[in-house]
Amino acid sequence: MNALFEKLDGGLTGIRLYGIAPPKLASDPERLHEIAAQQVARVRMLAPEGLVVYDIQDEPGRSGQARPFPFLPTVDPQVYAHDGLAELAIPKIVYRCVGAEPREAFSSWIDTVHAAAGRHLSVFVGAPRGRSRSPGLTLDEAYSLARAAPNLVLGGIAIAERHVAKEDEHQRMLAKQDHGCRFFITQSVYDAASTKSLLSDYALSLQAYGRSPVPVVLTFSPCGSVRTLELMKWLGIAFPRWLENELRHSADPLQRSIDLCESVFTDVQDYAREKQLPIGINVESVSIRKSEIDASVELYRRLSSRLGG
Amino acid sequence: MNALFEKLDGGLTGIRLYGIAPPKLASDPERLHEIAAQQVARVRMLAPEGLVVYDIQDEPGRSGQARPFPFLPTVDPQVYAHDGLAELAIPKIVYRCVGAEPREAFSSWIDTVHAAAGRHLSVFVGAPRGRSRSPGLTLDEAYSLARAAPNLVLGGIAIAERHVAKEDEHQRMLAKQDHGCRFFITQSVYDAASTKSLLSDYALSLQAYGRSPVPVVLTFSPCGSVRTLELMKWLGIAFPRWLENELRHSADPLQRSIDLCESVFTDVQDYAREKQLPIGINVESVSIRKSEIDASVELYRRLSSRLGG
Repeated sequence: MNALFEKLDGGLTGIRLYGIAPPKLASDPERLHEIAAQQVARVRMLAPEGLVVYDIQDEPGRSGQARPFPFLPTVDPQVYAHDGLAELAIPKIVYRCVGAEPREAFSSWIDTVHAAAGRHLSVFVGAPRGRSRSPGLTLDEAYSLARAAPNLVLGGIAIAERHVAKEDEHQRMLAKQDHGCRFFITQSVYDAASTKSLLSDYALSLQAYGRSPVPVVLTFSPCGSVRTLELMKWLGIAFPRWLENELRHSADPLQRSIDLCESVFTDVQDYAREKQLPIGINVESVSIRKSEIDASVELYRRLSSRLGG
Repeated sequence: MNALFEKLDGGLTGIRLYGIAPPKLASDPERLHEIAAQQVARVRMLAPEGLVVYDIQDEPGRSGQARPFPFLPTVDPQVYAHDGLAELAIPKIVYRCVGAEPREAFSSWIDTVHAAAGRHLSVFVGAPRGRSRSPGLTLDEAYSLARAAPNLVLGGIAIAERHVAKEDEHQRMLAKQDHGCRFFITQSVYDAASTKSLLSDYALSLQAYGRSPVPVVLTFSPCGSVRTLELMKWLGIAFPRWLENELRHSADPLQRSIDLCESVFTDVQDYAREKQLPIGINVESVSIRKSEIDASVELYRRLSSRLGG
């Protein structure tokens, strides 16, 4: 059996993922082919246990601030994962923004999954909290409809930054486990303390309810410029002030960022080990600059070697 | 020359202090004598380079919450340091709440210091920010009046928790240096990230203005019970949620707290070393329970051994 499913089924530590966004929809066919070929080569070289394919949606008014980069629609992640990257035989974890999706389209996709052979992996993303009148499904509706496809293995997102403000993210994690989530993926971790705080409350509530943890996959991304930093902050990623200062004032912010990611990871890993929580890694590049993509390869290797087991 | 003055004059790392509060004013003379004898014995055993004597004032409405312990006035710290603890020959750093003191009393104390032999050490504490109609001096007034006694060596308080909210504590530190402060003392450090953030902004602004750092003495105190935790939070000390969980759920919170203090110290020390900032330690017991005082002795020894140099 594939290493990823083995770790998911056993609730084991050590899951290794690499994450990509699909190419822009406006790319011409030749360029699309080229991007896919590069991604295939990169993923083959790294040989992660699974590939995360993001669903990038426009989110007008997120955090009330102007988006630092323009939004350009991408190829549908499901289509890209299974057609564009068909050559890659590894499991693909495809994000799906259900908050933007009508019920009929979602149900028909669930039917397709059910009819297909083998297990499929997906992470549902709801509409941002507090956003009224989302055009699509709520997360709960999507989880209910997804029961029709027992071969669909679900993961959920877990956001430490949200936990700082609301202190209920661990309860949301348990509720997602009730809905069938078998693992969690965080957004990029630059704030060790808030991540440890979420893991702490998660561990305490598992203990209180006599439940078992599922793997928490920690996402890391290099940050090589002030523009990438601004984008990541806009996306809701928290940077402790000293760490942001390091990135802003370093002679080589890209190398500094991967050193910092490594030390943040080590800190969180030590804590998770103490709490006997299974963790994993997911490395992605938020930016499409070659230097940052190359850095994500180096970061994947470093974290993967620290992850052990 | 005494090690403390040597390090202060040279702006060196490695200052070691121990901190105590004076006994309650209501204690009978015999009890006062007993407390002083115990403190003298403890300080002699630890042999710090200096002794911090706090000035505990009632602060009605601090943080708008009820004080978890009742306020009881103490012996005047200046009187206690020099009379009660007369046997201790080491330098004493006496806190002075100038925000509660009339100008005449303060000026007459400055005259006394000026007339006295040798160097004296003090840390002025202003009225809490935003508190209008303080009965006493502002910090700036006190610093100006203090110039009349050049043998008075001043330290200032530096509060990382305040920096999180206002992001100007490093500027306040530079202004205090302009006013003659030769070192800083923090409140108890349980939040490594906010302390590193303050040190980061301090280092960057020193660099921007071409100035030299003065020693930043980091205070640490054991926390052996939920009551002590509540008191420390009321005093304005920040605990990352995961760390507060550790203290609340540990089978032995006291030992856990000194282990955590040690790892927080190591984290901040590594960062300060990288930034070439001189640091020091100050260990105190916020509580008067024997177990917590004993733990402060163990903590002093552990941090002192890590401090090196």
